Amino acid sequence: MRNTAILLVDCPDRKGIVATVADFLYSHGANILHADQHQDNEIQMFFTRIEWALDEFDLDEAAFREQFQPIADGFHMHWRLEYSSASMGVAIFVSRELHCLADLFYRHGAGELRCRLPLIISNHPDGRPLSEFHGIPFHHIPIDPAHKREAEDGQLRLLEDSGVSVIVLARYMQILSPEFVARYPGRIINVHHSFLPAFSGARPYHAAYQRGVKLIGATSHYVTDALDEGPIIEQDVTRVSHRCELEDLIEKGRDLERVVLSRAVRWHLEHRILCYANKTVVFD
Amino acid sequence: MRNTAILLVDCPDRKGIVATVADFLYSHGANILHADQHQDNEIQMFFTRIEWALDEFDLDEAAFREQFQPIADGFHMHWRLEYSSASMGVAIFVSRELHCLADLFYRHGAGELRCRLPLIISNHPDGRPLSEFHGIPFHHIPIDPAHKREAEDGQLRLLEDSGVSVIVLARYMQILSPEFVARYPGRIINVHHSFLPAFSGARPYHAAYQRGVKLIGATSHYVTDALDEGPIIEQDVTRVSHRCELEDLIEKGRDLERVVLSRAVRWHLEHRILCYANKTVVFD
Amino acid sequence: MRNTAILLVDCPDRKGIVATVADFLYSHGANILHADQHQDNEIQMFFTRIEWALDEFDLDEAAFREQFQPIADGFHMHWRLEYSSASMGVAIFVSRELHCLADLFYRHGAGELRCRLPLIISNHPDGRPLSEFHGIPFHHIPIDPAHKREAEDGQLRLLEDSGVSVIVLARYMQILSPEFVARYPGRIINVHHSFLPAFSGARPYHAAYQRGVKLIGATSHYVTDALDEGPIIEQDVTRVSHRCELEDLIEKGRDLERVVLSRAVRWHLEHRILCYANKTVVFD
Amino acid sequence: MRNTAILLVDCPDRKGIVATVADFLYSHGANILHADQHQDNEIQMFFTRIEWALDEFDLDEAAFREQFQPIADGFHMHWRLEYSSASMGVAIFVSRELHCLADLFYRHGAGELRCRLPLIISNHPDGRPLSEFHGIPFHHIPIDPAHKREAEDGQLRLLEDSGVSVIVLARYMQILSPEFVARYPGRIINVHHSFLPAFSGARPYHAAYQRGVKLIGATSHYVTDALDEGPIIEQDVTRVSHRCELEDLIEKGRDLERVVLSRAVRWHLEHRILCYANKTVVFD
Repeated sequence: MRNTAILLVDCPDRKGIVATVADFLYSHGANILHADQHQDNEIQMFFTRIEWALDEFDLDEAAFREQFQPIADGFHMHWRLEYSSASMGVAIFVSRELHCLADLFYRHGAGELRCRLPLIISNHPDGRPLSEFHGIPFHHIPIDPAHKREAEDGQLRLLEDSGVSVIVLARYMQILSPEFVARYPGRIINVHHSFLPAFSGARPYHAAYQRGVKLIGATSHYVTDALDEGPIIEQDVTRVSHRCELEDLIEKGRDLERVVLSRAVRWHLEHRILCYANKTVVFD
Repeated sequence: MRNTAILLVDCPDRKGIVATVADFLYSHGANILHADQHQDNEIQMFFTRIEWALDEFDLDEAAFREQFQPIADGFHMHWRLEYSSASMGVAIFVSRELHCLADLFYRHGAGELRCRLPLIISNHPDGRPLSEFHGIPFHHIPIDPAHKREAEDGQLRLLEDSGVSVIVLARYMQILSPEFVARYPGRIINVHHSFLPAFSGARPYHAAYQRGVKLIGATSHYVTDALDEGPIIEQDVTRVSHRCELEDLIEKGRDLERVVLSRAVRWHLEHRILCYANKTVVFD
Repeated sequence: MRNTAILLVDCPDRKGIVATVADFLYSHGANILHADQHQDNEIQMFFTRIEWALDEFDLDEAAFREQFQPIADGFHMHWRLEYSSASMGVAIFVSRELHCLADLFYRHGAGELRCRLPLIISNHPDGRPLSEFHGIPFHHIPIDPAHKREAEDGQLRLLEDSGVSVIVLARYMQILSPEFVARYPGRIINVHHSFLPAFSGARPYHAAYQRGVKLIGATSHYVTDALDEGPIIEQDVTRVSHRCELEDLIEKGRDLERVVLSRAVRWHLEHRILCYANKTVVFD
Repeated sequence: MRNTAILLVDCPDRKGIVATVADFLYSHGANILHADQHQDNEIQMFFTRIEWALDEFDLDEAAFREQFQPIADGFHMHWRLEYSSASMGVAIFVSRELHCLADLFYRHGAGELRCRLPLIISNHPDGRPLSEFHGIPFHHIPIDPAHKREAEDGQLRLLEDSGVSVIVLARYMQILSPEFVARYPGRIINVHHSFLPAFSGARPYHAAYQRGVKLIGATSHYVTDALDEGPIIEQDVTRVSHRCELEDLIEKGRDLERVVLSRAVRWHLEHRILCYANKTVVFD
């Protein structure tokens, strides 16, 4: 793995952005490995993601921030600088269904997800053996509706103590409070077991079964205060027929959930996602 | 093309249905070409579609009806007998978007859709040249909201005069009145340009674009009084990304619409669809 | 789980098969849960799979065999009777890539695969921790080309001692000898990491990368003496682009391999597959 | 439609390419609408496609060529400059199957394909009525194996007289001679009715049917001297089962062929494709 830096930018679209940023990077010895950009012509916004090798780059983080800021100001940019070497801490929240957790563990072990996994949090004890097999601390924090606040406080303490910067809800069947969500804006990734916006809310497979759809889906998205309405990161579907009973839908859906959640987590970890207007730009 | 008969049955599930029906057909010389069945274990219903060659079958339609009825009564069956040689009359309704119409014409010419096409009805004149090229009478019946009833009366007269038994709404952008729908129950097929139940109603591509979905879809369904809520026959989706502008969604969607509509029409013409509980069983 | 029996039949197509079999089952109290049939009109063959509840069925296995055989003889049937309660023993062979093994373990634990897993066999030690976590005996049998025969003899002894009736090659990177294959005809399931017949043989992802395909695939099939040419059970593909490096193809391919292999195993365990003419009929 | 220019570049990868090109364009008033780039890290090549609005761009074509050439030389670039206003002439070759031709006509009429269609060439008369309906001259040039050379000479004269720069083989069932292919290098697009490299050559649906595949595919590619081995532009597949007879495969395949061919033609017309190492980079 090469050490790289990643610059993510969004700003009003106008001439000269690419030339200016490319010049700046080139003048400091950046060897650009990937560059992707997007213009939203409807709202006149520009987005870019540039990744370069650090071998011959002559700015450290502090120097970059100091010297790039005037350019950013000139174009009214929002921007972030990330380093591939800075492994993010990811907490996985899970309830009783463990297929997404098992899948994330597998991909982490296979090197597909570059991050630390300092802890698993669950409102049920079911995930403990699997977590311990993978050597990840497992915290069982039951959620009693009457004391949800205290439970969330306990979760937040654990997250802070572990230096977590991303939370993955891997079929975690509790709704987070607005206060909790506000602590990790744009950094909580959920998988919903339907093709949103169809069948938002509870028991989507039951609803899909009743409606008689011919495809079922799954959606990964960032969590916001509006339930199941955050920016969509990835979706996928699979075919079903009248032969499928409810149980079949649930089983087929698991395969979708694993795929759409893991892709979202990976893209987030690789700094490939920009959010705007409740949508995502995914530079995959 | 071989001459075949098709028997469609639904009834409460119980022992002996298959044995009794198979015995009856066998005793009259039926050479079964296709047989498909389905049990819905949740509501204890049985469905079957049996197609047989008529070469050595010794019952004509009247005799079949007379002799099969006691069996049907014994099992409380709903049943239909269809003949592949009885070409149905199909009316296509269209507005200004002609891709589905052109596709249906092509498939009809290629032999994929076995039916008569006695007329095209449209609230716009755009489809006339294409219809006339294919030799199909085209009727331009503008819809003025103040006189919609009269327009529908005109449509109904044309349909009756032409012996139409199926109506295909090939991107027909008018809502049919409940009275109209009641005249062709389970015999009006619509294509909706979204993955229902997501984005029902008007301008689904606009809504999909605003929501930032990563897949767009199309749905063919039978028309009922509840807008976009009739039994779903077929659905398909295709991938989109942040790069797709609204216009791209519309263009990609056209390919989906053609496919899901033509499949539904074909299955209907081949008597492959049974409706129940606002769902479809498709014996494809 | 209800106790059911499954009858699988193939025979020359002619009139009366369905009526005769349905009569026989009905006369003995069978409550048919699923029935599927297929005619291959090209070679005039008939195939069926019938599953019924045993609650009120009045024949035990021996009586069934005795009383059904005359019917089978009359129609020149090949037939098998299976019981859902008879859990098959499955051996999984694996090498160093563990994603399919992990997936099969997960699905087994989730109840998707109804079978016993008496042992894992590998030519590498990598799968041991995972196997032991799931409580399945793991046998490391290195394959030295000069002593392959002895290694296979050791494998065969283990398989026999464990009462294995199905072998799943879950990315097992050794070619089985014809003698070995002959011991488990139609009972060894392999996953090949390409869309067969494209890219058969070694290193299919490398070949796909060189050829510049826009989709990559995976195939599960029964193993025969002809490498990668056995009857195909299931295939799936996923989209790739010029942006994908070889490593990306391999990672995307893993998801396909898991899905196509697990589907094949499941269908085999549920007695849904019939082979003929080097093809499969899958009654899914 | 805005008037735009498109610059396509490939060259050895090294630092400073993006900065230099972006600077050049910016200094001349280019308003960049789309920019995409790709590095092939295996062979150290860089590819880019940049599209900009011409409204405020201060170089005409001659001036651009003169002033950009020194930059191109410095980076050892291959490059092309295209204008969206320069509508290419496309000749469609067809035999007896007309679904791709009908589809291309539809898309052309709908504005999806921006080009001129000066002529249709066919070795059969079947496509004449459809071509004439769309107002496109149709030339019937039968191919007699003994006089293929003369037939091709006739074709070439027509192409030259019509100012054709792209040839689309829309199910044209004749093999072009190497001499013919050499006249339109990288400018002849074919659709092959299989998922290449599987089932190259004649009668791919028959071969797929015999092999018992579970998916069938179609491939669009540039024509080279090696039959069915040119750079792949697009591929797609659809699911089939044991229930599908050969005729079903052929019908399902038509839908794939239309889609993969029309995408390839569109991308070519929009200058989105770069070829190298017998592969394509598609900046879609």
